[in-house]
Amino acid sequence: MVKIAQFSVEAWMDKYEHNCKYNIAETCCASISIDELRELSEDKTREVFKTSTALTYGAIRGADALRDNLARLYSARSGKVLPRENILTTNGAIQANYLIAYALLGPGDHVICHYPTYQSLYEVPKQLGAEVSLWKASPENKWSPSIDHLKSLIKPNTKMIIINNPHNPTGAVLGKSFLQQVVDIASEHKIIIHSDEVYRPIFHGITPMDNEFPPSIMSMGYERVIATGSMSKAYSLAGIRVGWIASRDASIIDEIAEARHYTLISVSTLDEQVAAFALDPSTIHSLLARNIALAKSNMEIMEKFVLKNDDACDWVKPVAGTTAFVRFHRDGKPVDSVDFCEKLLEKTGVMFVPGSDCFGEEFKGYVRIGYVNHTQSVKEGLDKVTQFVRRNLDDVKLAE
Amino acid sequence: MVKIAQFSVEAWMDKYEHNCKYNIAETCCASISIDELRELSEDKTREVFKTSTALTYGAIRGADALRDNLARLYSARSGKVLPRENILTTNGAIQANYLIAYALLGPGDHVICHYPTYQSLYEVPKQLGAEVSLWKASPENKWSPSIDHLKSLIKPNTKMIIINNPHNPTGAVLGKSFLQQVVDIASEHKIIIHSDEVYRPIFHGITPMDNEFPPSIMSMGYERVIATGSMSKAYSLAGIRVGWIASRDASIIDEIAEARHYTLISVSTLDEQVAAFALDPSTIHSLLARNIALAKSNMEIMEKFVLKNDDACDWVKPVAGTTAFVRFHRDGKPVDSVDFCEKLLEKTGVMFVPGSDCFGEEFKGYVRIGYVNHTQSVKEGLDKVTQFVRRNLDDVKLAE
Repeated sequence: MVKIAQFSVEAWMDKYEHNCKYNIAETCCASISIDELRELSEDKTREVFKTSTALTYGAIRGADALRDNLARLYSARSGKVLPRENILTTNGAIQANYLIAYALLGPGDHVICHYPTYQSLYEVPKQLGAEVSLWKASPENKWSPSIDHLKSLIKPNTKMIIINNPHNPTGAVLGKSFLQQVVDIASEHKIIIHSDEVYRPIFHGITPMDNEFPPSIMSMGYERVIATGSMSKAYSLAGIRVGWIASRDASIIDEIAEARHYTLISVSTLDEQVAAFALDPSTIHSLLARNIALAKSNMEIMEKFVLKNDDACDWVKPVAGTTAFVRFHRDGKPVDSVDFCEKLLEKTGVMFVPGSDCFGEEFKGYVRIGYVNHTQSVKEGLDKVTQFVRRNLDDVKLAE
Repeated sequence: MVKIAQFSVEAWMDKYEHNCKYNIAETCCASISIDELRELSEDKTREVFKTSTALTYGAIRGADALRDNLARLYSARSGKVLPRENILTTNGAIQANYLIAYALLGPGDHVICHYPTYQSLYEVPKQLGAEVSLWKASPENKWSPSIDHLKSLIKPNTKMIIINNPHNPTGAVLGKSFLQQVVDIASEHKIIIHSDEVYRPIFHGITPMDNEFPPSIMSMGYERVIATGSMSKAYSLAGIRVGWIASRDASIIDEIAEARHYTLISVSTLDEQVAAFALDPSTIHSLLARNIALAKSNMEIMEKFVLKNDDACDWVKPVAGTTAFVRFHRDGKPVDSVDFCEKLLEKTGVMFVPGSDCFGEEFKGYVRIGYVNHTQSVKEGLDKVTQFVRRNLDDVKLAE
């Protein structure tokens, strides 16, 4: 029986999403339509999908065209080609993450999970009977967890280290040499590293020229790694439910494929065609260029917002992804983030996600902002928040 | 950690599907394309889906248009309107069934499951820690389980009775008065009935005029019921991954909706539009008329096949759905169904599913045939099987 935390991000969104005017809680790069996707392609004559193909279950492990495009992406920076067979498609990354836990974890297993992060990454292993230790990141250390802490958490039965890179909700990254240390520890103990990489490759504050630019966990030379990804965030296509699981270890993929038979059978053949189109070399570059440009422009707006309200909020400026974790306070004391978000929504129509309820009660005063929505909406929304801070912050409860 | 049975139906299909020439293992009514779906509609000008809508996550619990069409179907024969809010969409019925177990069952719970049936219905509750009792149907009783047996299986902690109606693999149905007895027992003990109804409404051997015509579990006047359904089987659209969960009890839906946040978020907005189009009053009647006609024609071919080979096989003739469970024997002794299926595939290109490995080892000699594929393919395939039985049955191992 599932025990869901009081508020999950989704429960929050489900409850309030339809009342909001400015959705700056959304973590997707501003979503596009099929028509817009076709416009982004260099080849405007290609069909995004075929309407004449019988809608059978399709390829059980995922369409070849899609898996080939994904394999190419994982092969590009690593020097080692990834075979198509090392990839499974799923109905979104949420299911990819779920399935990994369902297939590989259970009573008797110990898991170490990056924290704070998307709740399901640590809650699902717990629900399935595994013991979970949280590997905590803190704002004092620019939201980087510590390698010594990781070492101290390892147990004889540690089966998996779960990381989220780029990081939700903070937009921080685990850089290359940091990842190398995680890999060294994992490989010494033969631990699987599962890296949730749904915000790759939206890097707006670091470039591939930087020595610490974070590679995918798939490019670190270690076999026992699993990366998950999705079309929803970086590729603006949440409405097609396409995520994936990739591993350098084919036996891990086979094990997950078995468990997949009881949970999904196959992924929508229409959606897989749209995803393959978006990841095709003729489309992917312009799609990512659009989204990284959007992230950069909107980050400037975010920076101005934080500067303007620096008496009432602070943050660690994100370097990647689509989210920022901003702490609001009054007279130096953190506000009650749920009360803040609810009053903000009521007064202004702006939707944020409350950090203390959706990411952990220690994150008092924090809200998660999703700032890679349409620029106009982010700008107008943040202006409303500034007004709210000026006029209404005194009415917001402080955190207990 | 998931322990998957040696062969699940999907593992079998995944392994052999691409080598077969005649897929008579497929349980879907012959799949159609989007173009064919549009042709089946009375309104040929309507768009199946919009390409200009931004592909956001969409409505978290399922698109209103789709849930309205489903609610109408469940309201039609019951006299009691079902609100849209009592339905959740899922990525296929496999996920609907999984989610029900994940949300509602765990250690300490007891479940009674109709048997044989689709493996995941009893394996998933077991994996999640529930105790499962099998409520066995047998060919001697036309694949109907016994009400006395059901009564004897009830325990103080029995939380759910899972049935599959129409029944996979046998094509049998649990008739109206039988269902009433199940409801009476369940309601006495406040047990939830979960009815997997993915083969509704493909009734080819019984008509709504028959007193025993089986209603949906949703139309029996009992609140604590859950029905699952899908676009894959009866509606020929497996390539869109759309299934659903319906209940007369809104609190059950809320509980499942919570668990859904960790496993799926939302269903493909493209797929939901295609499903809504197919279930719209302007399309559904001709789509179902096509499929029921196909089931009837192909059933005639199946009957001739069984008659022609009655020295080597027997069955209980199906009355609904798309599958038949046929037992092959030599000199009165059941064959080894895996060896039979593998040799058959090798010699003829015909794919069946072996009953003993995919449905339970007591079903020695049984194979599951999916006969509502395209008539020509079923006819040619079964002719090949007849030849195989005449020429090669002596080479097939007998069951141990």
